[in-house]
Amino acid sequence: VALVDDLQELASRVSAGERRALAKAITLVESTRARDRVRAATLLGALPSGGAPSVRVAISGPPGVGKSTFIEAFGLHAIGQERRVAVLSIDPSSSLSGGSILGDKTRMYDLSRHRDAFIRPSPAGTTLGGVARRTRESMLLCEAAGYDLIIVETVGVGQSETAAAGMTDAFVVLLLPLGGDELQGIKRGIMELADIVLVNKADGDQRPAAARTVADYRSALRLLRPRSPLWTPIVDSCSALTLEGVSDAWTHVLAHHGVFVETGELTRTRSEQARKWLWEELTDQVTAWLRTDAAMAQALAACEAAVVRGELAPPAAAARILSNLSPIR
Amino acid sequence: VALVDDLQELASRVSAGERRALAKAITLVESTRARDRVRAATLLGALPSGGAPSVRVAISGPPGVGKSTFIEAFGLHAIGQERRVAVLSIDPSSSLSGGSILGDKTRMYDLSRHRDAFIRPSPAGTTLGGVARRTRESMLLCEAAGYDLIIVETVGVGQSETAAAGMTDAFVVLLLPLGGDELQGIKRGIMELADIVLVNKADGDQRPAAARTVADYRSALRLLRPRSPLWTPIVDSCSALTLEGVSDAWTHVLAHHGVFVETGELTRTRSEQARKWLWEELTDQVTAWLRTDAAMAQALAACEAAVVRGELAPPAAAARILSNLSPIR
Repeated sequence: VALVDDLQELASRVSAGERRALAKAITLVESTRARDRVRAATLLGALPSGGAPSVRVAISGPPGVGKSTFIEAFGLHAIGQERRVAVLSIDPSSSLSGGSILGDKTRMYDLSRHRDAFIRPSPAGTTLGGVARRTRESMLLCEAAGYDLIIVETVGVGQSETAAAGMTDAFVVLLLPLGGDELQGIKRGIMELADIVLVNKADGDQRPAAARTVADYRSALRLLRPRSPLWTPIVDSCSALTLEGVSDAWTHVLAHHGVFVETGELTRTRSEQARKWLWEELTDQVTAWLRTDAAMAQALAACEAAVVRGELAPPAAAARILSNLSPIR
Repeated sequence: VALVDDLQELASRVSAGERRALAKAITLVESTRARDRVRAATLLGALPSGGAPSVRVAISGPPGVGKSTFIEAFGLHAIGQERRVAVLSIDPSSSLSGGSILGDKTRMYDLSRHRDAFIRPSPAGTTLGGVARRTRESMLLCEAAGYDLIIVETVGVGQSETAAAGMTDAFVVLLLPLGGDELQGIKRGIMELADIVLVNKADGDQRPAAARTVADYRSALRLLRPRSPLWTPIVDSCSALTLEGVSDAWTHVLAHHGVFVETGELTRTRSEQARKWLWEELTDQVTAWLRTDAAMAQALAACEAAVVRGELAPPAAAARILSNLSPIR
């Protein structure tokens, strides 16, 4: 009971917008300890729901495109428009080296110090699914704390984009000003997710190249089926350095949000995202339970040994284990 | 019983090396129908185990590197060394367009017609985890049918490489002859998986660039921790066009296999892979069961509705559903 009271209090403090409580709550949802997972579920269940929907935007792009600089400029502009901004990142990193692409603490210096901004890099070294699910939970906490522009940042080279698209309303892709035959260094498939494409670094010498890249991608996107029949992707240029086009970028994001709210597409999208997330959680929690239940553990051990010796194919072993279960009542 | 007899007969015909039976068996393991999944598990359980281990190689590389041409040359060379070759591909494709990168039927023309080769592209449009697991099952079927060199081909840009590395013993990365600062178009992290790196198209004008690329990657790989302490990655060049270096590539693969067999690393690696696969299968099958059990379905419906309405966070809903379960006995 004391435990639940604790979490109720934490939920209240998060909802009151207390920055330290929010940071503490995110640390809890990021924990992989079994006991903390239960506490995190309780905490999320205790948050108030409802209110005007926040703007949830994924921002992705190849290394070197200037994502941090853009997010800083974009976030500060939105704050100037009475928004409160949270930046969360999905960083799958390398599972072998454990290094974080996003570890640099000097990123987004001005934004990170602003009282209307909250920046939280994700922990490195976890499985992608796990990181993405924790980022979703962190997003709900940030929204409960009053942040109404959520930016989910990804690194543009892995599966993290699908995860980011699965938790946001609009997907922004940043590109470099390059010749038509040069590769942007992003994964095939990312352009299909794009709702808004911004060619960054459109300043100085690079203006002509940026204009050509805008034209190239406008043509290219006509060949792709848009993500939603309600929205035709916008291609534009900007410079996070000179700030030119940053205000337009915000206008594009708001236009997308407006269409989605008016048509009910926002509610539909978020409902479907929540349903998928529920299934992922169920699978996770059932798996955790299979690993810890004593009777199951024994049945598993025999089959696992046969699998490890190469005597039994894993699908056959799994079927054998589960065929002995009586239905859960 | 007739069903099981059927599958026993199919298993026998696969083991006798009947090509049509193998194709039919792979079609069965690729089916996503619930009934076929059970049949596939039974079929895999009926295959004989044991015998000398096959050589399992993953081959990856950026678009345009000449993967098909290389695999054709490499496969035909191995057949000349008394091997029987199966080529399987993991193709995550685009989940939106459903198009297949590997769909071209004119690939590997000579190899595909050879009686000692079996080529099977994976179906497009499935989830990556699913495709990868079906590829693993197809691999076991091919081995039972007497194929002793298994090539798992991936497209070099997604999560499929991790999946391919998780079902093979050696990972071969093909690269283009490029200047040191040009990007190869492969995902960060792939080089960390590489056991053997081959710079393809080392012919004609491109010889000097290929030699420089070999030197660059030899230096670069020294900075990365190798996948296994027992094997230092090899970097070499080849030309699938002139066939120069293809024989050496086969020698490198055999050297890697020899070290892994002699040290017991092959058995250890495969045991660990089988254990992981078992857990993935268990999770899959439990999830399928949660979706179909009538009593669970009802409990789920209420929570799912609350989640979809945005009234309950998915982790909290999952915990609520599972807290009502009695332990499976």
